[in-house]
Amino acid sequence: MATTPAQQKIFSKSDLTILIAGAIAVICAGIFYYFYLNPVIAFITSAAAVALLAALVGRSVEQLGDRFGPGATGVLQSALGNLPELFIAIFALKAGLTEVVKAALVGSILSNLLLVLGLSFLVGGLKHGTQKLGSSRARTIVTLMLLSVIGLAIPSLAHWIHSAAAPHEESFSLIVAIVLLILFLLYLPASLKRGKAGITSEGGIEEKPRWPLWLAVTLLVIASGLAAFVSDWFVTALEPSMKALQISDEFAGLVIVAIAGNAIENVVGIQLAAKGRSEYAFSVIINSPLQIALVLAPSLVIISQIFGLAIFTLVFSPMLLAAMFLAIVLAAFISFDGESNWLEGAALIAIYIIIATAFWWG
Amino acid sequence: MATTPAQQKIFSKSDLTILIAGAIAVICAGIFYYFYLNPVIAFITSAAAVALLAALVGRSVEQLGDRFGPGATGVLQSALGNLPELFIAIFALKAGLTEVVKAALVGSILSNLLLVLGLSFLVGGLKHGTQKLGSSRARTIVTLMLLSVIGLAIPSLAHWIHSAAAPHEESFSLIVAIVLLILFLLYLPASLKRGKAGITSEGGIEEKPRWPLWLAVTLLVIASGLAAFVSDWFVTALEPSMKALQISDEFAGLVIVAIAGNAIENVVGIQLAAKGRSEYAFSVIINSPLQIALVLAPSLVIISQIFGLAIFTLVFSPMLLAAMFLAIVLAAFISFDGESNWLEGAALIAIYIIIATAFWWG
Amino acid sequence: MATTPAQQKIFSKSDLTILIAGAIAVICAGIFYYFYLNPVIAFITSAAAVALLAALVGRSVEQLGDRFGPGATGVLQSALGNLPELFIAIFALKAGLTEVVKAALVGSILSNLLLVLGLSFLVGGLKHGTQKLGSSRARTIVTLMLLSVIGLAIPSLAHWIHSAAAPHEESFSLIVAIVLLILFLLYLPASLKRGKAGITSEGGIEEKPRWPLWLAVTLLVIASGLAAFVSDWFVTALEPSMKALQISDEFAGLVIVAIAGNAIENVVGIQLAAKGRSEYAFSVIINSPLQIALVLAPSLVIISQIFGLAIFTLVFSPMLLAAMFLAIVLAAFISFDGESNWLEGAALIAIYIIIATAFWWG
Repeated sequence: MATTPAQQKIFSKSDLTILIAGAIAVICAGIFYYFYLNPVIAFITSAAAVALLAALVGRSVEQLGDRFGPGATGVLQSALGNLPELFIAIFALKAGLTEVVKAALVGSILSNLLLVLGLSFLVGGLKHGTQKLGSSRARTIVTLMLLSVIGLAIPSLAHWIHSAAAPHEESFSLIVAIVLLILFLLYLPASLKRGKAGITSEGGIEEKPRWPLWLAVTLLVIASGLAAFVSDWFVTALEPSMKALQISDEFAGLVIVAIAGNAIENVVGIQLAAKGRSEYAFSVIINSPLQIALVLAPSLVIISQIFGLAIFTLVFSPMLLAAMFLAIVLAAFISFDGESNWLEGAALIAIYIIIATAFWWG
Repeated sequence: MATTPAQQKIFSKSDLTILIAGAIAVICAGIFYYFYLNPVIAFITSAAAVALLAALVGRSVEQLGDRFGPGATGVLQSALGNLPELFIAIFALKAGLTEVVKAALVGSILSNLLLVLGLSFLVGGLKHGTQKLGSSRARTIVTLMLLSVIGLAIPSLAHWIHSAAAPHEESFSLIVAIVLLILFLLYLPASLKRGKAGITSEGGIEEKPRWPLWLAVTLLVIASGLAAFVSDWFVTALEPSMKALQISDEFAGLVIVAIAGNAIENVVGIQLAAKGRSEYAFSVIINSPLQIALVLAPSLVIISQIFGLAIFTLVFSPMLLAAMFLAIVLAAFISFDGESNWLEGAALIAIYIIIATAFWWG
Repeated sequence: MATTPAQQKIFSKSDLTILIAGAIAVICAGIFYYFYLNPVIAFITSAAAVALLAALVGRSVEQLGDRFGPGATGVLQSALGNLPELFIAIFALKAGLTEVVKAALVGSILSNLLLVLGLSFLVGGLKHGTQKLGSSRARTIVTLMLLSVIGLAIPSLAHWIHSAAAPHEESFSLIVAIVLLILFLLYLPASLKRGKAGITSEGGIEEKPRWPLWLAVTLLVIASGLAAFVSDWFVTALEPSMKALQISDEFAGLVIVAIAGNAIENVVGIQLAAKGRSEYAFSVIINSPLQIALVLAPSLVIISQIFGLAIFTLVFSPMLLAAMFLAIVLAAFISFDGESNWLEGAALIAIYIIIATAFWWG
C-alpha cells in the first residue's frame, strides 16, 4: 500500500492471493475427489478451485499483452479466456448433463445482465450517486450483444413454435453456430482496434504487462492444464452434491455453475463500479453475454458434433428462452436510459432473485 | 376566476365540485343499492361515487402535506392513495371475482400506458405541437416501472411456460409479493427526496396545503370510510349489470373497473398535458403502473392469504400477460424516443382500442 | 457523368435502364407464360418484370410531383406506390395462396428491417465509418412504425393465446384493419407537411419533376396495367416453380416474393447509404413496414371481403409473429442507439439468414 512502488514488483498483492488460494483450493479439491469424501464439500472446494484457476488464466492471458502481434493475441485471448468455462461444459456434456450445460450458458447471461449489473449499480450508486452509462461505445456493445443473443435464441424459438423446423434441431443449430462464429471473426479485428474494452479483455484494468513472457506462458499452461483436471472433478461432484442438497439440475446449472464459472470476472465488474468507473464496469459486464453467444455456445455445438459428446443443440427450454429475452431487453433499456442509480440496481437484483426462484422448482 | 385571491380560500372551485358531486353520487348509489333498483344504473352511480371519493381521498392526502414529517407522510400517502382501488379489489375477491380483479390490475396498467398516455399526447400535441419527454428523471421512473412490472409478470410467465413451477403458484406469488414490497420500501425514501413526482403523489399539482390539518384528516376519514361502503355497492352491482349488458368478466375488469377506479387521476394527467406540462404529465401517468406493481398487487396477494379471501395469485391469463408486456415495452420506447406528438398519441389510443376489442370476446 | 448537364434531359440514365430492361423482361415473361415453357425461368423473368415495373410505377408517381395539390398527390402516391405489391397479393389470394401472401407481408417487414437495413449499415459503414442515425425525425418514424406493426400483430397474438377471440378472427381483423386505415388517414397530412421522407415517398431522392405531366401519367397507366398482367403471370408461375425447386410455400412468400416485390426500393435504400446519406436511407427503409402495416395489410383484409377472394385475416402463423416482433424491436433499439457501423449491419444480416433458415423447413 502506502509508498511502496508496487508497480515494479512482478506479482501484485492480488496476484499472490489468487496464486496461493488457488493452490490450496486445487489441493483440497483433489484430496476430496480422489478419496471419495463428502460430495458437497468436494463440490464446494472444486468450485472454488475452478473460479481461482479461471482468474489465473484470465490474468495470464492479460499479461501476454500484445506480444504476438495484435491479430494473433486477440484470437488467443478470446480463445483462452473462455477455456475454463469450456472445460466445465465439455466434461458436463461427456457426463450427459446437457440440461445443466444449457442452463449454465443462459445462467451466465442472466447473472451478468441482472445480478452482477445490479450489484455494480447498487455499489456504484451508493458510493458515487447517479452514474452515467450512455457513451456511444457502451451502446454499440449493447447493440451487438442484443443482436448476438437474439441470433442464439432463434433456434429455440423455431423449435417451440414452428413445428416444421423442430425435427431439424441439430442441423439448424449447426448453421446458426457457424453464422455466429463468422460474425465473431468479423468482430475480432474491430474489437482489437477499439481497445481492451472490446471482446478480448474480460475485465482487467488496462496496464502494461508486469510479467515476463516466460512466466505468463508457464502460468497459462499450468493453470489451463489444472483447470481441465479440476473441471472434471467439479462436474463429477456436481450430481451427487446436488442430489444431497435436493437441488434440481436446471437450478444447479442456472445459478450455481453459472456463478462459479464467472465468479472472479464478476467481482472485477463490481470492483470497477465501486471505484466509480461505471462506464468501464458496464462494458465489461455486457461483454460476457456477447462472448457466450458468439464464441462459447457455437463452439460447444461444433465440438459436441466433432468429438461425439452428448448432442448439444441451441434449443433451450422455453423458460430459459423467456428469461434470456427478459434479461437482454432490460439490459438494453437500462443502457439506453443513460444513467444508473442504486435503486435500479436493487430492482435488477430483485428480478434475478424472482427468476432464480422460478427455476427452484425443477 | 378574475382577480379573486382564490389561493386564500380553503376550498377551491374544483374541491367544491368534487365534494358536492361526490355527495350526490354517494346518496344516489345508496338509494339504488338499498332498494334493489335497476342494477345498471346502480352500477353507474356507484362507479361515479367511487371515482369521486377516490378523488376526494387523493386530495385529502395531498392536503396532509408534510405535517407528520417526510418519512411518515410518504408511507401514509402511498398507503392511502391506493385505498379506494384496494377496497374494490378486496370486495371483489370476497365475492369470488378473482378474474375481474386480475383483469382490473392489468387494465389499470394498460389504460395508463396506452389510453391516458395516448390522450395526453393527443391533447398536448394538438395544443402545443411536438413535446419533450426526455428528462433523465422521467427515464429513471420509466426504467423502474419497467423493472417492477416485469417482476410482477414473471410468475405468470413461469406458470404458463415452465410446468415445474406451475403447482407452486401460491408460494411463488407470495415470494414475489414480498420481494416487490421490499423494493417499494427501498424506493420510498428516494421518491420522497426526489419530490412529489415520485411514487407518493398521484398527480396533484404541487402547492402548499390549503386545508387546516383537522379538516384534511376529517375528510380523509369520511371519504375513506364511504369509499369502503361504496366499493361494496359497486362490486355488488357489477355482476348483474354486466350480465344485463352482456359484457364478459375479463372485459368488465380490464376496461370498466380499471377506468372507473382511476378516472379522476387520469383526468389530472390529461389536464397537465393540456397545460403544456408534458414532462410532469408523463411522470404522473407512468407512476401509476409502478404503484400497481410495487404496492397494490403485492398487497392483495398478502391480504388475500391473511384474511382467507378467494386465493389471489400473480398468475394472470396469457393474453393479459401479453398485453402488459406490449404496453410497458411501448411506453419505454416512447419515453426513450424523447419527444411526443399527437400522432403517436392517436396510435397509442388505436392500440388500446385494438387490445380492448380482443378482450371483448370473453 | 462528368460535365454533361444530365438534369436537363427528360430521361436520366437510370430511367432508360429501367424502361429498356423492363420492356425486355415483360416480353420474355409473356412468352414463357403463354407458351407454357419452363416454369422456373417463367417465374424468374416475371419476378424481374414485376420488380422493374414496380420501379417504373414508383418513378412515375414521383414525377407526378405536387401537381394535383399536396393533399390529393399524397393520397395518390401512397395508393399507387403500393400497387404492384397489391396486385401480386390479390392474384395470389385469388389463387388461394393465403399463406404465401401472409408470409410475403411479414417477409417484406423482415427484409426491410433486417436484410436491407443490414446491407445499408454494412455498405455505409465500410465506406464512411460509423454513421449517425439519431435525428428526432427518424426516431418519430420508428416509433410510429413500432406502434403500427404492433397494432397489426395483435389479432395473431389474440388468436394464438386467447382462445375466446379465436373464433372471431374475421371480424376482429376487419376492426383492426379499419382502425389502422383511420390512423393512416390521420397520418397522411402530417407526412406530407413533413416532406417526402414521410410515408409518401418510398425512396426517391428528392428533386424537381423532370417529366412533363402527360408522360408521367401515360407511363404510370401503362406500367400499372402491365404490372397487373405480370403479377398474374408471376403468381401463376410461383407454385409450379416452387415445387420444381422444392421450396416450401412459407419460405417462398417470406423470402422470394418479399424480395422480388421490393427489389428496386431496396436497392435505393442501399444506394443512399453508399452515398453517405445514412439518415435518409434509414427513414426510407423504416418507412416501408409502416406502409405495410397501415395501408397494404388493412387494404387486403377489406378487399378480400368485398371481392369475395380467399378469406384474408390478420392472423399470421406464430413463427411469422415472433419474427415480426424480433425485427421491429431490434430496429427500434438500433435507431435509439443513434449510431450504426458495419458490424451491426453484418449482425442484422446474420439474423435475417438465421430466421430465413428457420423457415426453410416449411
